[in-house]
Amino acid sequence: MARLPLPLPAMLPLLLLAVLSVTAAAASSRPHPLDPLTLAEITAVRAAVLASPLVPARPLTFHYVGLDEPDKPDVLAYAYGGGTPGRRARRQPLQRRALVIARAGGQSHELRVDVAQNGSAADAATVLSHAIHRGAGFPTLTLEEQFAAVALPPAYPPFVESVRRRGVDMADVLCAVFPVGWFGDAGAPRRVAKMLCFVAGATANFYARPIEGVAMVVDLDRMAIVGYRDRVAYPVPKAEGTDYRAGKAGPPLAGPQPAPGLVVQPEGRGFHIDGNIVRWANWEFHVGFDMRAGTVISLASVHDADAGTRRRVLYRGFVSEVFVPYMDPVEEWYYRTFLDTGEYGLGLWAFPLQPGADCPANTAYFDGSYAGQDGKPVGGENRICVFERYAGDVAWRHTEAGFPDRLITEVRPDVTLVVRMVVSPGNNDYILDWEFKTSGSIKFVVSLTGLLEVKGTPYTHADEITADAHGTLVSENTLAIYHDHYVTYHLDLDVDGTNNSFVKNVITTKRNTGDPATGGADTPRRSYWTVRREVAQTEADGEVDVDAGPADLLFVNPGKKTRLGNEIGYRLITSGATAASVLADDDFPQRRASYTKKQVRVTPYSKSEKWAAGLYADQSTGDDGLAAWSGRNRGIMDKDIVPWYTLGLHHIPYQEDFPVMPTLSGGFELRPSNFFERNPILGARPPASTHGHSANRVMPGDVFAGKTQVI
Amino acid sequence: MARLPLPLPAMLPLLLLAVLSVTAAAASSRPHPLDPLTLAEITAVRAAVLASPLVPARPLTFHYVGLDEPDKPDVLAYAYGGGTPGRRARRQPLQRRALVIARAGGQSHELRVDVAQNGSAADAATVLSHAIHRGAGFPTLTLEEQFAAVALPPAYPPFVESVRRRGVDMADVLCAVFPVGWFGDAGAPRRVAKMLCFVAGATANFYARPIEGVAMVVDLDRMAIVGYRDRVAYPVPKAEGTDYRAGKAGPPLAGPQPAPGLVVQPEGRGFHIDGNIVRWANWEFHVGFDMRAGTVISLASVHDADAGTRRRVLYRGFVSEVFVPYMDPVEEWYYRTFLDTGEYGLGLWAFPLQPGADCPANTAYFDGSYAGQDGKPVGGENRICVFERYAGDVAWRHTEAGFPDRLITEVRPDVTLVVRMVVSPGNNDYILDWEFKTSGSIKFVVSLTGLLEVKGTPYTHADEITADAHGTLVSENTLAIYHDHYVTYHLDLDVDGTNNSFVKNVITTKRNTGDPATGGADTPRRSYWTVRREVAQTEADGEVDVDAGPADLLFVNPGKKTRLGNEIGYRLITSGATAASVLADDDFPQRRASYTKKQVRVTPYSKSEKWAAGLYADQSTGDDGLAAWSGRNRGIMDKDIVPWYTLGLHHIPYQEDFPVMPTLSGGFELRPSNFFERNPILGARPPASTHGHSANRVMPGDVFAGKTQVI
Repeated sequence: MARLPLPLPAMLPLLLLAVLSVTAAAASSRPHPLDPLTLAEITAVRAAVLASPLVPARPLTFHYVGLDEPDKPDVLAYAYGGGTPGRRARRQPLQRRALVIARAGGQSHELRVDVAQNGSAADAATVLSHAIHRGAGFPTLTLEEQFAAVALPPAYPPFVESVRRRGVDMADVLCAVFPVGWFGDAGAPRRVAKMLCFVAGATANFYARPIEGVAMVVDLDRMAIVGYRDRVAYPVPKAEGTDYRAGKAGPPLAGPQPAPGLVVQPEGRGFHIDGNIVRWANWEFHVGFDMRAGTVISLASVHDADAGTRRRVLYRGFVSEVFVPYMDPVEEWYYRTFLDTGEYGLGLWAFPLQPGADCPANTAYFDGSYAGQDGKPVGGENRICVFERYAGDVAWRHTEAGFPDRLITEVRPDVTLVVRMVVSPGNNDYILDWEFKTSGSIKFVVSLTGLLEVKGTPYTHADEITADAHGTLVSENTLAIYHDHYVTYHLDLDVDGTNNSFVKNVITTKRNTGDPATGGADTPRRSYWTVRREVAQTEADGEVDVDAGPADLLFVNPGKKTRLGNEIGYRLITSGATAASVLADDDFPQRRASYTKKQVRVTPYSKSEKWAAGLYADQSTGDDGLAAWSGRNRGIMDKDIVPWYTLGLHHIPYQEDFPVMPTLSGGFELRPSNFFERNPILGARPPASTHGHSANRVMPGDVFAGKTQVI
Repeated sequence: MARLPLPLPAMLPLLLLAVLSVTAAAASSRPHPLDPLTLAEITAVRAAVLASPLVPARPLTFHYVGLDEPDKPDVLAYAYGGGTPGRRARRQPLQRRALVIARAGGQSHELRVDVAQNGSAADAATVLSHAIHRGAGFPTLTLEEQFAAVALPPAYPPFVESVRRRGVDMADVLCAVFPVGWFGDAGAPRRVAKMLCFVAGATANFYARPIEGVAMVVDLDRMAIVGYRDRVAYPVPKAEGTDYRAGKAGPPLAGPQPAPGLVVQPEGRGFHIDGNIVRWANWEFHVGFDMRAGTVISLASVHDADAGTRRRVLYRGFVSEVFVPYMDPVEEWYYRTFLDTGEYGLGLWAFPLQPGADCPANTAYFDGSYAGQDGKPVGGENRICVFERYAGDVAWRHTEAGFPDRLITEVRPDVTLVVRMVVSPGNNDYILDWEFKTSGSIKFVVSLTGLLEVKGTPYTHADEITADAHGTLVSENTLAIYHDHYVTYHLDLDVDGTNNSFVKNVITTKRNTGDPATGGADTPRRSYWTVRREVAQTEADGEVDVDAGPADLLFVNPGKKTRLGNEIGYRLITSGATAASVLADDDFPQRRASYTKKQVRVTPYSKSEKWAAGLYADQSTGDDGLAAWSGRNRGIMDKDIVPWYTLGLHHIPYQEDFPVMPTLSGGFELRPSNFFERNPILGARPPASTHGHSANRVMPGDVFAGKTQVI
């Protein structure tokens, strides 16, 4: 053994340094405060809840287990230290806590559980608090109870008789669970759902083959059928032409076949994953998974190359609710007014992404772990994918033809980073993309696909339809019912800091007065437009119909300005899918999702205000959701504010949507607007030369006119 | 030599077959009737015009030389024979004619020229007709006259003095030509333009450095400066921070650098080019180039795999006009209300696309030939690119979790075909994409980039601004002026045939009456929406503000129905950029482009109605454009109709847009809607397996709940 070259006291600083290094290394293997619960943590949480004397009733079923986020100031301090992103050396681990919503004894229990800090002693978790939910609504349905419920009808004699009467083989029958909604009932509700059934038989597309007119009510707590109705018998639509599986959709592969293509990255991927942190180009953000929200993006910050600093953009963003009301008032359809996030859970209904199909080959995947109904962890593979998108787009370009002696062209191709999840809550599929751009923009794209929700009908030709059919005849005996999709994003923007304001720059026509003092001039021009700045004072000002008139909608940091004195901000730009609900205000589904009448709302940050239709969305009454909160009309100026954006689509189905719907996309963008001092990708690297040409070249002037190249 | 095995009469049919084959082969080397004029044809046209006694005045300058399209019925007969696409065996060559607009003797001459049919005798072209344009407006400016004009100021003493007074080196000065517009002058106008000047110096971005307050008037026919004004002197903005060229934008390449990527097509390209016809997947269309319109897509038809037929979608589509009004009424700005198509020419200002930058590596290019001012042909290389886009999107998918024993996922990745042109008429760049989808959709995307048009100002900080500055301070002494972009598409849809109707399916809220006869039901649901069908009778009905209320806008073939009795149609779906003009109706620029108040117009087909702001757009008065034509309120029901869509953006500039603007995109889609009997890509091939998984796999049920995979 080598002699110590220094006396011990002289070595102390070095030893301390070593200890500090070890601590730093350990910190990176320790979960980030916003990391989803690990499998071990879920196990620990389950043990703590089952061991707690606070919920003695059994059976106890777990409807939600997820991270109970630390307080925002603590997370900000952890992530950004003294307030500046990047200074994280002395970050302190934060207490890991879980939120559990469980059913037991006919009640909804809300528990907060302390998860052991160092993650080692799994059974050291303890229940910190317990409350019984007394208000309206029930928690998210578990997958297990839905599977248990749909196992009941084949043994339920009235249903057996209904199926027999229709000449259908019970072995071909599949049922699904449909929330009942809320329609004004003031009494104490039972936790029930409807069950509607379908015929699979020769097709995987059982949704295309409803046993129309038959509905059951299942009591989910008792797991028993408590209501039954066989109201009317319509033909079950044929199986032929409904399957979408390769080889079953005959004639086999008769459709157009474009050439296969593959993105190759000669220098490898451009993004780096460290735990749940993704770093790519100028972006850094945390990717979380939640069994209710699905993907949660947190702590998104962008590096400002000119300032040499990392700057905050978004504290947290996720899909808060998806409202899907159908437009047929008939008995088996009037309640189909789904709240996919609250009733079903987007994370629960996100299934494994298919490599090379849902996401291209150059993709990394995140798993999404959640708790089963028994509280045990489920390690869901490939729930979120991350890939660089090479779509052939251009980040910026210019051709300058104004010089007499040369033609200058500079082009920077665009590469973006996509974070994708696909959610399939029943018949519909939602492809939910976050697209980060080097320009500082974040684009949100929702692509609808999957299967239509159809109604059995005697009609086989449109000419037979005389009354309002509430849908489109998409196949014989098959009406695809009109419906809407409202995808509501919770977007806790922190534009360059916590306190922000919402500014509407309203585009306003002016007459030319001829008077310079009012912006006019003595010219023949008669009109122009200018910008009328409106700063939203309260939540009522924060409600905006984006189609009501032209305006730039900005989230600004009133405490910070550019060197030129412009307010630092991000702008909301819509890109299709701006439908707002047209249901009557007093209609019950609309009361439960009344926030869908305006695309934009802005609330002051409140840790508990996450779910637009309420935490307990199943059978909710609208008394604890986004509209109720913002109805308090709180101040939102120069505060920590949360914009909510509802992307909406009215869907009149067409025959092309059957039996599976070609993707229909809509989206919006958050774009830096006086956030940077200048174009932040001015310094982007030009592409390598291809085909013997430099990709950006100065050409002699004679290739264009002036001195035309005469042939 | 082998003996003839058959007597001559018996061989005749074989010989005839051989002759027919040769004819067919020759036909494909002969130009398609919609092909742009070839270099030889332009040469022939020039010779014919110069030799014609109809225009004796000299000098004669060519402002437009392009294909004078054959009559639509003739083209349809050529392309589709007996009306059905695909039957083209007996196609007859059509007379090739050119339209020439020339200036001579202070007049605009319109000539139609017969181009020799077989293309062999180049000098056989003859002038068929000649007319002098007596109405308002002048033809498109030539590139050469603009270069000639901007050469005048450095030798114009008052300008030399103005430049000297500002301490600017004339060697650094560049000028540009700006159309004067029209502001109510009733007298006979001269063909003049404004000239405004800039300082390049150390930057390529001279547009960022205006010599504000100085303006000249140039008489383009006399090529002399006829007006001069040095109204006010503001500081010329600094060159520092304005250049966008790689290596000049310092600090060098400090921006975010994503990983390079390349699309590889292992089986090669999926599209085939035959002359100007492109065939890809289920699409076939003709790509043309016009010095005014840029890209012209014609005879787009889609193969219907189920029907086994090729079906018509679009007869002809192109960008008819681009209106860009600025919003500063001051003397040097009030007339900046550009009509980029009519005044400058999109094809003329389309420059060579940069391979690997403007378009990815897997790209084919079309040249775009046009005539110089002297009438001689210019062979413009790489003006249009065509590539398959692998953006990581999904064509359709579904995950079916409803079976108790398996999880089915079927995904079809999306590959699309993009036809792109980039137009750079001055400071702005427009990336104009046609995107064909196997689903039958055509998407139109306009991406704005390039340089802002800025105004010199004494301001260096926003706090100094007290009156309306009409723009955003984007750099010291640099105001980026508010403006709009309106890109108007002429889209002669022929949905499954020539005669179409325009249908608005208006989404209408209904109270639930409880009465089935009116669509109600005895349920607690209080409201729903349904569709009120409105068939546009006349052009007034065809004017639609797409943001005024929810509706599906359809172009249907009233003579054809699906097997289910639904009207065969295509639907217009907007995707951002739906701004309409807010200028006063009586303002002169608005009168010239009054069609920009509504996004949608529909006119009956008229061969001469191509240019929304008129054929003679320079100094046009609005008396011969889209609004004037549709003001006749002609019938548009069950007729050959032409939809016009105006994509609009109000642009409040931000600092990020300086010195070069990150791309901002908007678009719209034409989507088959009851055109096909079912999803036309149901039979699309699933992707090959990757990473050892089949890309579409049936998974055991225990990966998800029901039987949860407990870890």
